[in-house]
Amino acid sequence: MSDFNLGLVGVGKIVRDQHLPAIAATPNCHLVASADPFASLPDLPAYQDLEAMLDAHPEITAVSICTPTHLRYSQARAALMRGKHVLLEKPPGATLSEVEDLIACAKEQGVSLFAAWHSRFAPGVAQAQQWLAERQVQRVEVEWKEDVRVWHPGQAWIWQPGGMGVFDPGINALSIATAILPQPFFLQQARLLVPSNAQTPIAADLTFTDPQGASIEAAFDFRQSGPPTWDMHIHSDGSRLSLTQGGCRLVIDDELIIEEEEREYQGLYARFAELIANKRSEVDVAPLRQVADAFLYGHRESTEAFIE
Amino acid sequence: MSDFNLGLVGVGKIVRDQHLPAIAATPNCHLVASADPFASLPDLPAYQDLEAMLDAHPEITAVSICTPTHLRYSQARAALMRGKHVLLEKPPGATLSEVEDLIACAKEQGVSLFAAWHSRFAPGVAQAQQWLAERQVQRVEVEWKEDVRVWHPGQAWIWQPGGMGVFDPGINALSIATAILPQPFFLQQARLLVPSNAQTPIAADLTFTDPQGASIEAAFDFRQSGPPTWDMHIHSDGSRLSLTQGGCRLVIDDELIIEEEEREYQGLYARFAELIANKRSEVDVAPLRQVADAFLYGHRESTEAFIE
Repeated sequence: MSDFNLGLVGVGKIVRDQHLPAIAATPNCHLVASADPFASLPDLPAYQDLEAMLDAHPEITAVSICTPTHLRYSQARAALMRGKHVLLEKPPGATLSEVEDLIACAKEQGVSLFAAWHSRFAPGVAQAQQWLAERQVQRVEVEWKEDVRVWHPGQAWIWQPGGMGVFDPGINALSIATAILPQPFFLQQARLLVPSNAQTPIAADLTFTDPQGASIEAAFDFRQSGPPTWDMHIHSDGSRLSLTQGGCRLVIDDELIIEEEEREYQGLYARFAELIANKRSEVDVAPLRQVADAFLYGHRESTEAFIE
Repeated sequence: MSDFNLGLVGVGKIVRDQHLPAIAATPNCHLVASADPFASLPDLPAYQDLEAMLDAHPEITAVSICTPTHLRYSQARAALMRGKHVLLEKPPGATLSEVEDLIACAKEQGVSLFAAWHSRFAPGVAQAQQWLAERQVQRVEVEWKEDVRVWHPGQAWIWQPGGMGVFDPGINALSIATAILPQPFFLQQARLLVPSNAQTPIAADLTFTDPQGASIEAAFDFRQSGPPTWDMHIHSDGSRLSLTQGGCRLVIDDELIIEEEEREYQGLYARFAELIANKRSEVDVAPLRQVADAFLYGHRESTEAFIE
C-alpha cells in the first residue's frame, strides 16, 4: 500500500473521537495538518481554512472532510480541483445534486473520492453481506433507536433543515441495509414525527419493499432511554440473520458467528488507502437517496416540542 | 425510423389532452390497446391492467406509463421484464431509488427506457441550450406560478405525500433549467410554504448556486390568479436570455428568436421512437433529484389551509 499525507478539514467531536485514533492505527497514512477556523489539535500545524493548509503543505495528497454537512461540497470541490484525494464523512453532502458534481469532478481530475459510510465497516457487516448474497429475503426488521440527549448533546443543527433529525443515525442503518440486502429496496410508506419546534423528525416508521416483494420495516427513534438499540433482523429462506449492536454482533439461526469490538474508522481509512493505491473512487449515494426519498414521500405529523 | 406498437397504461386527463394527439401525429407509432381499471378510449381494445393487455397483444413492443406516480414503478418494471420499451410520464417515479432500479432493469433487458420531461421539448429550449452551452452564467431568475384551481382541479393527490404540491409544475421548470444551464447547480436554501391541511408545499422560494458561484433563484407559486407565469431569465456575459410562456417564447437581448405554439408531446414521442430505433435509454433523474433535495434541505413553514 502506498503512503499518503493527510490533511484534516474540520476538527470537531467526530475527528477527536474516531478519526485521530484510526489515522494513528493506519501505518501508511501520515497526518500533516488540520484546517478549522475554531479548533486545532496539539502538536499539529493548524490553519484557518483548507486553502491555507494546502498552500502551506504541498506534500498533502489527501484530505478528510469532517466539517458540518452544508460546508462539505465547496471544500471537497476545492480539494479535488487541486488534485487531492478526498474522504467525505457521512452523509457525503447536504444534497444529492452536489454529490453528483463531486463524483464528476473526481473523475475529471483523476483522483479518488470516497464517501465514507462508517457503519459498513462494523465487524459483522461483510459476513452478513456474503451470507445474504445468494439468498432471497422475505422479511427485514430494522430498529435504530437511541437517546438523542446522550448521543447528540447540544447539537442543535440536527433539528435544522439538512440536519436530518433521526435520519442522522438512521442513515447508518440504511448504509448497512443497502450494502447487505441482495436486492435494492424502495420506500412504500413513511411516517415522520416532527417536533413542533423542529424541522426534522425525531422518529420515523418506514415501510419498504424490493423487486421480489419482501417486507422491509424500519423504526427509527431518538426518544429511546437507556442503551441504544441498533438492530437488524433478516428472514431469508427459513433462516434468520441478526445483526445487532450496530453490526458488532452477528447471529445466524441462533448461532453466534461474530462478536467483536467496533473499529469502523480503522476499516474506513484502510479502504481509503486502498482506493488511493488503486486510483479508484467509491461513492455510493444509495443511503442518502433513501433519506431524500423519505423526506420526499413521507407523511409528516407534528409531535410535542423537543426540549433538551 | 422503425415502426412500433404501443400500449397505453393509465387513461387519464394527460393521456386524453396530450398523449393521444401526439401519438396520432407520430407516423411510426401505432396505438394498439389501453390498460386502466376505470377508463377506456373509443374504438381501442381496453384491458383492466398491463398484464392482461400484454397477454392479449403480444405485438405490443412499447408502453407509455401514465398512471399516478406511486403505481408507475411496478408497472414499468413488469413491462421491462417482458422486454417492452417504456416511456415514463414525469416524474419517472415516486422515489429516486425506484428509478435507479428501472434504469438497471432496462439495461439488463436490453430495451429502451425513456423518462419523459415534456417541458424540455418546448419550442425555445433547444436553442436556449445551444446559446448557453459555451457561456458562463451569472444570474438566473425562474418564476413558475399558476392557479392550482385552474390547472389541477380536484386533484387532491397533489397535496398528499409524493404529490409534490407546487413542485408538480415546478419540476417542469427544473427540467428545463437542468437541460439548458451549462453547469450543474445545487440548492443552497429553500423555503417551503405548506398549507396547514396539506403535506406538500403550495409555494416555494429556492436559492441555488453552481460551481462558478452563479446566483440562481426560483419562485414557485400555486396561488397565482389570472394567466400563469412560466418564465426564466438568464444573465450571461452581459447578455440576457428570456425563455417565457413555458418555453414557447425565446428572446435574447431584446431580439425575438422564437415564438411558437407548443407541441411538446409530439417531440416526446419522436424522441421515444428515436431511442427505440437506436436501442438507447434516456433517464435523466436530475429534475426529480432537485425536488428531493428541496424536500430534504428545505425549511418548511405552515401557511393557511388550502380550500378548493
